[in-house]
Amino acid sequence: MMSHSVTQHPIITLTTDFGRSDGYVGTIEGVILGICPAATITHLSHEIPPQAVETGAFVLYQSCNYYPPHTVHCVVVDPGVGSERRAVAVQTSIGVFVAPDNGVLSLVLASATVQAAVALENPAYRLPRTSRTFHGRDIFAPAAAHLSAGVPLAQLGPAVDDLVRLELLSPPGPGLARVIHVDHFGNVVLSLTAADVPHPNNLMLTVGASQIQGLRRTFADVAEGELLAYVGSSRDHIEIAMRNGNAAQSLALRPGAVVRVTA
Amino acid sequence: MMSHSVTQHPIITLTTDFGRSDGYVGTIEGVILGICPAATITHLSHEIPPQAVETGAFVLYQSCNYYPPHTVHCVVVDPGVGSERRAVAVQTSIGVFVAPDNGVLSLVLASATVQAAVALENPAYRLPRTSRTFHGRDIFAPAAAHLSAGVPLAQLGPAVDDLVRLELLSPPGPGLARVIHVDHFGNVVLSLTAADVPHPNNLMLTVGASQIQGLRRTFADVAEGELLAYVGSSRDHIEIAMRNGNAAQSLALRPGAVVRVTA
Amino acid sequence: MMSHSVTQHPIITLTTDFGRSDGYVGTIEGVILGICPAATITHLSHEIPPQAVETGAFVLYQSCNYYPPHTVHCVVVDPGVGSERRAVAVQTSIGVFVAPDNGVLSLVLASATVQAAVALENPAYRLPRTSRTFHGRDIFAPAAAHLSAGVPLAQLGPAVDDLVRLELLSPPGPGLARVIHVDHFGNVVLSLTAADVPHPNNLMLTVGASQIQGLRRTFADVAEGELLAYVGSSRDHIEIAMRNGNAAQSLALRPGAVVRVTA
Repeated sequence: MMSHSVTQHPIITLTTDFGRSDGYVGTIEGVILGICPAATITHLSHEIPPQAVETGAFVLYQSCNYYPPHTVHCVVVDPGVGSERRAVAVQTSIGVFVAPDNGVLSLVLASATVQAAVALENPAYRLPRTSRTFHGRDIFAPAAAHLSAGVPLAQLGPAVDDLVRLELLSPPGPGLARVIHVDHFGNVVLSLTAADVPHPNNLMLTVGASQIQGLRRTFADVAEGELLAYVGSSRDHIEIAMRNGNAAQSLALRPGAVVRVTA
Repeated sequence: MMSHSVTQHPIITLTTDFGRSDGYVGTIEGVILGICPAATITHLSHEIPPQAVETGAFVLYQSCNYYPPHTVHCVVVDPGVGSERRAVAVQTSIGVFVAPDNGVLSLVLASATVQAAVALENPAYRLPRTSRTFHGRDIFAPAAAHLSAGVPLAQLGPAVDDLVRLELLSPPGPGLARVIHVDHFGNVVLSLTAADVPHPNNLMLTVGASQIQGLRRTFADVAEGELLAYVGSSRDHIEIAMRNGNAAQSLALRPGAVVRVTA
Repeated sequence: MMSHSVTQHPIITLTTDFGRSDGYVGTIEGVILGICPAATITHLSHEIPPQAVETGAFVLYQSCNYYPPHTVHCVVVDPGVGSERRAVAVQTSIGVFVAPDNGVLSLVLASATVQAAVALENPAYRLPRTSRTFHGRDIFAPAAAHLSAGVPLAQLGPAVDDLVRLELLSPPGPGLARVIHVDHFGNVVLSLTAADVPHPNNLMLTVGASQIQGLRRTFADVAEGELLAYVGSSRDHIEIAMRNGNAAQSLALRPGAVVRVTA
């Protein structure tokens, strides 16, 4: 059951690995506006690397709690499209999520209270002709739009209580952290969080021959071109940056790389 | 004459080769919102390769029929800007289209019923100062916005009945298909359609030393990293993909390349 | 004090160096919609090169005068985030601007009348928890949203009258012009403006061994693949283009490069 009245402005966010060059995202927007003409649609990212469920999960997790709780977040990172994986909608304390049940909601589910979840099986809330390769358009977008327009969650299909939850963001081993994301600026997000660093001054991160000592408050605390570690702006993950430079390039770090941690 | 009442939520889609880095698209949005403040603007693609009329035509054709028929589709892929090519608005059974008359509407016109078409010559529906190099901002966007705000099509200029129609998507010869688009995932769209393949099991596509046998239903019908052919999710064109991989890279296929077909 | 009544459709534009891959822009949209649900948000550019204050200033300057004057333009190109640089909101004759006070508004301020300006110091109009590395989300977006929702400018903080104004777009010396921007098509925008060229037929631009003679009206005035100079579509800057080609690549010109001018 949706917790919002339909007099609120409906908001739908989209997170996909579709890119913006082919019209796929614009097609989804057309489907949504045909069902829920008053929806405001925003875009968290369409540059999730193809089929990268963990990156999609992380981007969603970082952004979604800055939206009003009546927002419907539609996530389509879907390596299993056309297979037997389920499509689901989940009502939580921080928003409604529509996605393939492949773990892409794991971080959100670990940080929010699940109130209800259903499998998207009711054909009345899909497009009349459902393709086998573009469920974003045919199943996920219509579900998100109907929910935004006020259709109760329970109408979309049978309740489910065994959502796929993956162990994402876990450290690769004792004394190690993993690179979980490299952003547009070359800032490097680690699996390490502020809670893992009881004595910020003692923190030492080692990447090859480079060492980064302590936690800084912000970029301006170091000289131009110097590396620093700091608590990121969302969800308290530790990040490595270079002031007015690109840390990931300079350190040759990519998602999945390992950093040595002394804390 | 517009078929919709102005009480509907106006929708305008944009398809251009402008990219998103320079502010050109944002400028167009400002022009539209100044004329039709209630418009919802969506973006089919701004990554059409510069001046690539065929790609623009194809992206528009794939997406536009997922929009409500009162939508105004504004297309600016315009190698002839500043020359004598006409600017037109066309009312059809599936939507209203505003574009240079250079063939970019060919696929849409072949799949819809044209109800009326005009040349955009009335200066009252252009920006007061019309440049010679940015008609997207000065002519096309204002026309789309005025139409969305309820101005009748006939007000924008004289009727025309000789719209440019190009033979796009044609096969390059008997037993051959042409690559008409490569998408963000590396999926390869062919000029071949389902109607050209009466016996799906007998289909054989040959690209260099690679052969792809039969039509599959979806990616999950083959193993990871394997090539497959299938009927695409829109408009029934045959596509070649690699499950969880990039078929275009693997086969070195680009738009314009030729594939051998045995059906 | 805002000059518009809150019954107008609020419009907020965003200009940043954030890219679109990480969810940062989508996060900002969530913050805005939480405060001003009726806002239409548009995107001038999120591809400003990291920390490139001059490019951000130029893109904003080219686009903002195509928006209604009640628009709030939120600009986040902010190399000094976390340092002592001020955050400001400025009411002008052509719109309201919210930005770091680092010169990114210089071109706008030189072309409009400033009616009022304040420092964004009132914590009531920031997010409750303000990070030290993402003021776009925590300070600039909330300010823009509150202004769009009708909060008077003076509420946001104390008046300021010493806004940072940089000398941007200046020529590098007599008889020279500087490349200030290269657009998506490879068109090259010069610091030179139409006012600097009293005799258009006599203009000669020299780049290495290439010479470009005179000012043309539009691309179609030269043959395919030929270079031309013309008055750009906005703000009267002289641009160099290649008809249906890429002038910047052909001439190896990048922002900051110098072109010899005989006029």
